[in-house]
Amino acid sequence: MIINMRERASDEQIQHIIDRVKEAGFQAHITRGSERTIVAAVGSGGRRHELEALAAAAGVEEVVPIAQPFKLVSRQVKPQRSVVDVAGVHIGDGSFVVIAGPCSVESEEQLFSTAKAVKAAGAKLLRGGAYKPRTSPYEFQGLGVEALKLLRQVREKFGLPVVTEVMGTEDVEVICEHADMLQVGARNMQNFNLLRRLAKVDKPILLKRGPSASVKEWLLAAEYLLAGGNPNVVLCERGIKTFETETRNTLDLASVALARELSHLPVVADPSHGTGRRSLIPPMSRAAAALGADGLIVEVHPCPERALSDGPQSLDFSAFEGLMRSLAEPLRPEMVKEVKMATV
Amino acid sequence: MIINMRERASDEQIQHIIDRVKEAGFQAHITRGSERTIVAAVGSGGRRHELEALAAAAGVEEVVPIAQPFKLVSRQVKPQRSVVDVAGVHIGDGSFVVIAGPCSVESEEQLFSTAKAVKAAGAKLLRGGAYKPRTSPYEFQGLGVEALKLLRQVREKFGLPVVTEVMGTEDVEVICEHADMLQVGARNMQNFNLLRRLAKVDKPILLKRGPSASVKEWLLAAEYLLAGGNPNVVLCERGIKTFETETRNTLDLASVALARELSHLPVVADPSHGTGRRSLIPPMSRAAAALGADGLIVEVHPCPERALSDGPQSLDFSAFEGLMRSLAEPLRPEMVKEVKMATV
Amino acid sequence: MIINMRERASDEQIQHIIDRVKEAGFQAHITRGSERTIVAAVGSGGRRHELEALAAAAGVEEVVPIAQPFKLVSRQVKPQRSVVDVAGVHIGDGSFVVIAGPCSVESEEQLFSTAKAVKAAGAKLLRGGAYKPRTSPYEFQGLGVEALKLLRQVREKFGLPVVTEVMGTEDVEVICEHADMLQVGARNMQNFNLLRRLAKVDKPILLKRGPSASVKEWLLAAEYLLAGGNPNVVLCERGIKTFETETRNTLDLASVALARELSHLPVVADPSHGTGRRSLIPPMSRAAAALGADGLIVEVHPCPERALSDGPQSLDFSAFEGLMRSLAEPLRPEMVKEVKMATV
Amino acid sequence: MIINMRERASDEQIQHIIDRVKEAGFQAHITRGSERTIVAAVGSGGRRHELEALAAAAGVEEVVPIAQPFKLVSRQVKPQRSVVDVAGVHIGDGSFVVIAGPCSVESEEQLFSTAKAVKAAGAKLLRGGAYKPRTSPYEFQGLGVEALKLLRQVREKFGLPVVTEVMGTEDVEVICEHADMLQVGARNMQNFNLLRRLAKVDKPILLKRGPSASVKEWLLAAEYLLAGGNPNVVLCERGIKTFETETRNTLDLASVALARELSHLPVVADPSHGTGRRSLIPPMSRAAAALGADGLIVEVHPCPERALSDGPQSLDFSAFEGLMRSLAEPLRPEMVKEVKMATV
Repeated sequence: MIINMRERASDEQIQHIIDRVKEAGFQAHITRGSERTIVAAVGSGGRRHELEALAAAAGVEEVVPIAQPFKLVSRQVKPQRSVVDVAGVHIGDGSFVVIAGPCSVESEEQLFSTAKAVKAAGAKLLRGGAYKPRTSPYEFQGLGVEALKLLRQVREKFGLPVVTEVMGTEDVEVICEHADMLQVGARNMQNFNLLRRLAKVDKPILLKRGPSASVKEWLLAAEYLLAGGNPNVVLCERGIKTFETETRNTLDLASVALARELSHLPVVADPSHGTGRRSLIPPMSRAAAALGADGLIVEVHPCPERALSDGPQSLDFSAFEGLMRSLAEPLRPEMVKEVKMATV
Repeated sequence: MIINMRERASDEQIQHIIDRVKEAGFQAHITRGSERTIVAAVGSGGRRHELEALAAAAGVEEVVPIAQPFKLVSRQVKPQRSVVDVAGVHIGDGSFVVIAGPCSVESEEQLFSTAKAVKAAGAKLLRGGAYKPRTSPYEFQGLGVEALKLLRQVREKFGLPVVTEVMGTEDVEVICEHADMLQVGARNMQNFNLLRRLAKVDKPILLKRGPSASVKEWLLAAEYLLAGGNPNVVLCERGIKTFETETRNTLDLASVALARELSHLPVVADPSHGTGRRSLIPPMSRAAAALGADGLIVEVHPCPERALSDGPQSLDFSAFEGLMRSLAEPLRPEMVKEVKMATV
Repeated sequence: MIINMRERASDEQIQHIIDRVKEAGFQAHITRGSERTIVAAVGSGGRRHELEALAAAAGVEEVVPIAQPFKLVSRQVKPQRSVVDVAGVHIGDGSFVVIAGPCSVESEEQLFSTAKAVKAAGAKLLRGGAYKPRTSPYEFQGLGVEALKLLRQVREKFGLPVVTEVMGTEDVEVICEHADMLQVGARNMQNFNLLRRLAKVDKPILLKRGPSASVKEWLLAAEYLLAGGNPNVVLCERGIKTFETETRNTLDLASVALARELSHLPVVADPSHGTGRRSLIPPMSRAAAALGADGLIVEVHPCPERALSDGPQSLDFSAFEGLMRSLAEPLRPEMVKEVKMATV
Repeated sequence: MIINMRERASDEQIQHIIDRVKEAGFQAHITRGSERTIVAAVGSGGRRHELEALAAAAGVEEVVPIAQPFKLVSRQVKPQRSVVDVAGVHIGDGSFVVIAGPCSVESEEQLFSTAKAVKAAGAKLLRGGAYKPRTSPYEFQGLGVEALKLLRQVREKFGLPVVTEVMGTEDVEVICEHADMLQVGARNMQNFNLLRRLAKVDKPILLKRGPSASVKEWLLAAEYLLAGGNPNVVLCERGIKTFETETRNTLDLASVALARELSHLPVVADPSHGTGRRSLIPPMSRAAAALGADGLIVEVHPCPERALSDGPQSLDFSAFEGLMRSLAEPLRPEMVKEVKMATV
């Protein structure tokens, strides 16, 4: 931590800060500049929050942290990439894992036909909501346990492991019985009671980034899971809130690359929520694949215009197949020749 | 709902939409323009979500809602303002209620001295966190039940009703036993399991706006409480996330005025979280008072530089007294003369 | 500047930074912590940009500035508040100056009737656009010189000094001939060619904050004017872009208080653009007055529904009168008693 | 346009709107719903802005446009993609054109060595700033005409056409004499005087998206160029301002795909400004290539830590070569097998 004193800070104020830094268990190194004085708190065994509070002390301009606040999720602590095993499907091993399925589980027919179609097209995991977080209390809230039972049948019938959202601690047990991976939705990214509970389950967690969470806050949410005992975490970027209204959210693909740079955890992208427009899902999926994402999560519905939720951003089976085929196409074939010629 | 067809929509596509509008329980009114056709779904008994999903149908450009999605919180449903009674303190009756206290309850001495000081200066309710939502798992997480007990003692000893945050459904019961008002924090504004649970308690709720929640989403979160049976809701604007980094958040005071225009619920402002800078708390408090807010919630600590959380944005006793005095000063005395002269 | 080295920075990398700091004209103070090393560049005569570029050097985590980048606009350089004289009207002297008028000058009748009405209600300056920045090339672009002539007549006929927007260097001369204050619009806040040109005129400048400009960037734009020779600058907050769509922009009133804290320049607020909703203009005007703003700029039109631009956010004469009267009302009369009782 | 009346709008208010719609040159179609009435203005010859102003009329809730406001840039007007010829280099023909070079032209040696290196690695155009828009007046402002002369020499010596920024109308002529393509910087995207002037030059324009411009506003800025007579416009996404501070801006790659969907103009991406972090430039470049962008613009400097501007986000020659090679690598080779197997 660096404590940056105000220009007119008095000697007493500076001495007070030096005393408080020592009291907090750190050494104090002082740099007196032409305009102001800086106090650096050095050492590793002290109480960090006591330094942060010094921003409130007289004569202090600001307190600037110089180390990342997360530990267990960091590549500095664990340089090699983590691989998360979801009932036999490996995320983070260099492959590109596509998770697909309906926003909400609506019926056996809807779910089974979707499972069959997405598996045939190359998806490795099925998504489907049983408990739905909805902005309005008057919207469809999900089928609950009935949906969980259908999801379990999918796994048995089609050999597709399933991912479903958990909205609160009271649902953790029943979801663990039925699903292979538990999703923490964007709105719950900082539901710390839920995170603490999920740190104790033996299922992998898909942790979505909150719509206004910085990459640091997202990694710190994951830190709750790892610090609590669950190392099986996959991060998922699903778009942030910005002023742009043509897309439902702004899919921050740089955050996928950045989270993979700062952390060893696998990171996937959700172009369905990330854009909210069907036409943008295939190009953004290719973009995520190109920059090294560990996979995708995509909404697919047999008949989007009859979906009980998220219809406008759902692909039908044929569009999903087209998306999967586009992932097998080359990046930019003309560049191969260009760059070869240039480097000869 | 208006279904806006694409310019090149075919007659079949338009007819399909007309059929689907009727199937969803509405009448379809068609307007054929020079460039495109609009289908208006008219009536009140239909299934709204079926119309929304039509954004996914062929030939549809967009589906535009023309009515607000909230009902019970709306002034169209209840034009007269609601007054919420918090153990005898009335919020929403035209008065300006100041809620003050420490971010976290840290000790009996800290809490009691603060309670005494803020009461003396004019605060009507005490705030104090027992369960703290913290970005990092390594930060102080609150004293829990021990803090709740201290809060109850404050109420008895000082006659100050207390407000404290509830972070999950598992804590609702114990908090209801000790506190007079339950706060839903910004990060939990769309924790729908929690909202559904709090709809069933007989304590008033202070519902903070999420850092990336639109005013509509905030009102819909309140709608969960009212629709579930709890009409005693006070809204609290506490700043939204923007690109500006000089302030911790951007306090959106227009949302206070707007929420009071759209809803009958009382609305208070939180300049402590809303700005994150002590120097800005008094001017923003005066601004909130001037525009008609129903009150404030402000962080006060005996020694901000030793606070276990939110020190940089906490006022000490003397600064809080100064804030209260500034609320008793006139708006702009010189304008009284100016405007009188002008209108003579 | 503080150069924060990476955890694994080598001795050679650290030495390289020390050498480069000296080469840039500063002294280098080194602090070796338990995890990483910090190099502080100390002194005032060096080349700051050479330090900033060191963020690109091997082994460097980040370069953190510890001094504000602006000088002449700063209260550290000039603690006493500046007063800007606009043809005899003083902005910044503690009074609350209301600038009012139509978005665009449309006709003699429209302009004169508005001038008469706003003056009668207490406005001190008239605003009116001659050259209009419009998002679309197909929208009304202003009457140009014809409008300027009408504005000059207003000043003569009604004794109201006039403010009008300048969109480019080519229009500076003619506007200076006709207007008393030149407005730099939000979209041009970082039109540096224009700022450099306006630094050379002898008229005061109303500098609007850009819709995505931080307070620092805004003050640095003003610094261009002061550094170039024009000290007569009034800052104007007019709302920033955020995710909220119920209001046209988010009026960041904290930035008004903050700009007045960091700078000696007067600061006014524009609730018309800042909210885009007529109903919110009076409460936000009162809020601006309460926190100490130096004035307001408000759009007024004889018949908003016939305005060629910005009708939805314009007040008619009667609404403007109501606004002015509301500025003469007390802040919160009940608080006077409350606080007195509390402090007895 | 749809004029959405308030729930309690009176018959007189509705009739007034019907009259005004007709007066503005449109037909009025009325839909009376269970709760409110909608008036649709139909026809193509009317005065659109008169309808927009009706938002200010009594009884009106909102006025909702149902057609895109841009015309000439739209794919509805011109479905086939435009190809822009920059001194023989074609942008928009399906190839992926890389523009590279220093942020600022600093010296002959710096510029020539960079031109040689980027050409060898496969770049097709050189970028380099002669006039620099800088946030602070105390930062390096560019070498001006001296830089332009060096740029012209590059074109002659290395056969690389050059792109440089134009900051104001006064510089248009001299830049046209020296450069092959004129860049409008992000801060000037809505400098309408500049856009109107550039509509009259016979050089192609690279139009950067403003940091807070919506895709619609960006396309309308391009509309100024096309409507004024210059069809040779390449759009460039360079990141928008959001709450995320780990990256300098948030590169909105979905806007590249969306702009290509809505418009026939070519669209390139700027990952240097878009991220501000060297490590993120290669992955975001691959992402842009994968989603169909027409090219890139990238900052390259012989020694980024000595750059006079934008060092932290500049690549050195070796990193740029690596970037170019990465563009020639396959998208995700493992998906080829996966998807083939799936579709067998």
